[in-house]
Amino acid sequence: MAAEVRIIGLEGMPEVRPGDDLAGLILEAAAGQGLEFESGDVLVVTQKVVSKAEGRIVDLDDVEPGAFARQIAERWEKDPRLVEVVLGESARIVRMDHGVVICETKHGLICANAGVDSSNLERLGTVALLPEDPDASAETIRARVAEAAAVSLAVVITDTFGRPWREGHVNFAIGIAGMSPLWDYTGTFDPAGLELKVTQMAVADELAAAAELVQGKLDRTPVAVVRGYDYPKGDGSLSDLLRDPEQDMFR
Amino acid sequence: MAAEVRIIGLEGMPEVRPGDDLAGLILEAAAGQGLEFESGDVLVVTQKVVSKAEGRIVDLDDVEPGAFARQIAERWEKDPRLVEVVLGESARIVRMDHGVVICETKHGLICANAGVDSSNLERLGTVALLPEDPDASAETIRARVAEAAAVSLAVVITDTFGRPWREGHVNFAIGIAGMSPLWDYTGTFDPAGLELKVTQMAVADELAAAAELVQGKLDRTPVAVVRGYDYPKGDGSLSDLLRDPEQDMFR
Repeated sequence: MAAEVRIIGLEGMPEVRPGDDLAGLILEAAAGQGLEFESGDVLVVTQKVVSKAEGRIVDLDDVEPGAFARQIAERWEKDPRLVEVVLGESARIVRMDHGVVICETKHGLICANAGVDSSNLERLGTVALLPEDPDASAETIRARVAEAAAVSLAVVITDTFGRPWREGHVNFAIGIAGMSPLWDYTGTFDPAGLELKVTQMAVADELAAAAELVQGKLDRTPVAVVRGYDYPKGDGSLSDLLRDPEQDMFR
Repeated sequence: MAAEVRIIGLEGMPEVRPGDDLAGLILEAAAGQGLEFESGDVLVVTQKVVSKAEGRIVDLDDVEPGAFARQIAERWEKDPRLVEVVLGESARIVRMDHGVVICETKHGLICANAGVDSSNLERLGTVALLPEDPDASAETIRARVAEAAAVSLAVVITDTFGRPWREGHVNFAIGIAGMSPLWDYTGTFDPAGLELKVTQMAVADELAAAAELVQGKLDRTPVAVVRGYDYPKGDGSLSDLLRDPEQDMFR
């Protein structure tokens, strides 16, 4: 039989609010569309609903911008309060040009605006921060859904990333539970007997990108189920996907 | 009904050789597993089989390395003939460090080793170059399959890319036919009425990544069909995915 992977959007997720039980909402939405979780499923969840459930929402009216934030905001015609929030989420600035700030977040992710985003929030004037610990967020969902559905599954939390050199954005993984994010080909050989040089595929990032095809950017389908993919087993984490700075040519 | 996208691996593709009719082989393989193409399908084809069919294979015994290639090869313990081929495929060197050469290819792609790869070839001592014109390669396949199956479909040709800051590789698009590679949200608004800032998703790259989940790296499934994805219509090309150097912070 042909290899086949299905990506199924979870319909009917309600607007998620601080304190909501996200795993519970996912179980309800799945039940609502008659979808029964199966062992081997990967639940792919966009960051925004995780951040909302965890209360990672900041009202810009509560932010007092510092001098650096005000200078940047003035130069690039941005909201100084938003810049202040971005700086507060950053451990390092990688680049600052063309009105874009590429940050290294406290988690070690390198992304625009430290992942701070104002879209798809209930109230204008608020912004969402990345989850404090996206692996822990993923594990919370995994453990709850696995127990309730009596299956073994993996969870990937995703966010939207720009890339150097390429136009457009894609979704990548920022939190992982129940799988290794990397498929390791070390020690495998091609049909001609040559050991494979590309030794690791970032399959969690590929799952994130695949799920975006049904999720879209308007946040109406924040959860997708990838079914039929034999993901690499293991107890992986975001840190597996972060390049050692010593090996990084684009610091 | 829930949004669902299926990724179906095309089984039974034979070893592809220079001069082979790749579209014909794809049609035969699909027929062999009883898969009928449908309008709206996206055929995702890995670069290696395209390069093989187009005879983009170089025997390293035929390569005479120049002085620069010999110097680099000596420093990093590489085959000077391979380095010569990489340099010949490059329009610009972006970075050269840790034994890795990040090149801008003649097509404008930025990738390691200018896309030159020695894996999954029939004979050791040979390397594959990227197709001369991956959009044209995609269009050739699209036109043939569309006509034979009497359907309207898109084709994406993919290659495996490393990324700055992130471990592991993913597949990205290098050739496009029959669709726009970007989903444009310009002028759309989120539920709170805020205009979306992330205006373009690189859906061709997401299709490439999704297909890799069934293709794998051993090249036994070089073709996958993505079914159920309402891709952005248009006459797109690789150049749509290449960032304007003026806007590039990581030149």
